[in-house]
Amino acid sequence: MRYEEMTIEGRNAVLEAFRSGKTIDKLYVLKGCQDGPVNTILREARKRDTIVSFVAKERLDQMSETGKHQGVIASAAAYAYAEVEDILKIAEEKGEAPFLILLDNIEDPHNLGAIIRTANLAGAHGVIIPKRRAVGLTATVARASAGAINYTPVAKVTNLGATIDELKKKGLWFVCADMDGTTMYDLDLKGPIGLVIGSEGEGVSRLVREKCDLIASVPMKGDIDSLNASVAAGVLAYEIVRQRYR
Amino acid sequence: MRYEEMTIEGRNAVLEAFRSGKTIDKLYVLKGCQDGPVNTILREARKRDTIVSFVAKERLDQMSETGKHQGVIASAAAYAYAEVEDILKIAEEKGEAPFLILLDNIEDPHNLGAIIRTANLAGAHGVIIPKRRAVGLTATVARASAGAINYTPVAKVTNLGATIDELKKKGLWFVCADMDGTTMYDLDLKGPIGLVIGSEGEGVSRLVREKCDLIASVPMKGDIDSLNASVAAGVLAYEIVRQRYR
Repeated sequence: MRYEEMTIEGRNAVLEAFRSGKTIDKLYVLKGCQDGPVNTILREARKRDTIVSFVAKERLDQMSETGKHQGVIASAAAYAYAEVEDILKIAEEKGEAPFLILLDNIEDPHNLGAIIRTANLAGAHGVIIPKRRAVGLTATVARASAGAINYTPVAKVTNLGATIDELKKKGLWFVCADMDGTTMYDLDLKGPIGLVIGSEGEGVSRLVREKCDLIASVPMKGDIDSLNASVAAGVLAYEIVRQRYR
Repeated sequence: MRYEEMTIEGRNAVLEAFRSGKTIDKLYVLKGCQDGPVNTILREARKRDTIVSFVAKERLDQMSETGKHQGVIASAAAYAYAEVEDILKIAEEKGEAPFLILLDNIEDPHNLGAIIRTANLAGAHGVIIPKRRAVGLTATVARASAGAINYTPVAKVTNLGATIDELKKKGLWFVCADMDGTTMYDLDLKGPIGLVIGSEGEGVSRLVREKCDLIASVPMKGDIDSLNASVAAGVLAYEIVRQRYR
């Protein structure tokens, strides 16, 4: 894998990328541009829940490497996403109870990178991120992961709630963090587990939270509301490590 | 306190700021400028271990708010630094064993902000940073701290090693993180403690490390070398929380 974000430019290239099933992190379209081919691309983007930004020509020109964007630039991870199945298989091969980290709309690439880094070192088998409203595997994420992106698989799923339901059928328990929860030290986090981390601004969404079996609270002794998302992920992941390996 | 970095411009203003004892985070001087007043300012900067950058006129013009920088711009925290004594007094007033976080040259303002945020929520009484080669309390740090900078005092010291020596006389123990250390769960971290976090690239410097009473290792189950500095600080700070409050 390479430490780069891939830019796909021009109408044919972008449409082809969508049709080949490649995961596009973000689509940039010239503001006001509404002709047939562009509408076809937008339809594909909608089908796949790709984030679309309508931007000025100057912005596209600036982003363009080829100088021939024709009003459409797609940005895709130069890193291959894994499947959730792959992640479970890794746990199985290691003979360990699955330990997954699920991110409910982390938007900051530095946080995503730091969490992949933590996942790697805490012995998590993989990270699951949603397709919508979340940052993908960009070059910034790769840098912030300090190389962990090359070892720890990241899967991108359409619906985090549905993925949780499927994984529950396979025996996983899910824990998310919330101030109202049980102090994390008092929960049993030893079995097959999915740790759910909420977004920077809004925490875990209601729908995902309702699917969690356990709500863990990190002790808060201070004046402000919450830890940085990647720090919270680290503290919770290491509580799981402590319980698993002590 | 305000969420801003203060810019002090012009030779008199900058010299006066130095002489009044104000902590200057960084001094920008026009490249090639070596006349009397500038040399006087540089001497003051050297006395106080201020980081000096020699930059082109365009850079200074860009930074200048007044348009009258005369080749010299100092950037200072709009936040007041505390004294180490103030931090100890807070612990005393709360009737708690002191819990300090010392940062050995954290350079990334996002990490510094996230660590101040963690310090606040983990119930640390304050953060100590060195004057040299480290980021100060800039606007970016304040934002990343999510407001914690308004509650958790930050002291800036000339020599981290000397500060550790003084604090040891007052009964504090010091722990730093290193891969070669004892697993953190096996250390007693309950008493008056200073947690030392190393820089992003190089970890804890040799001199500071040698002064530490305990070397803690965070369990590493993965392929890469180290956690993000603010995540490591969070994991270690919360191990202290667990031991203190359980």
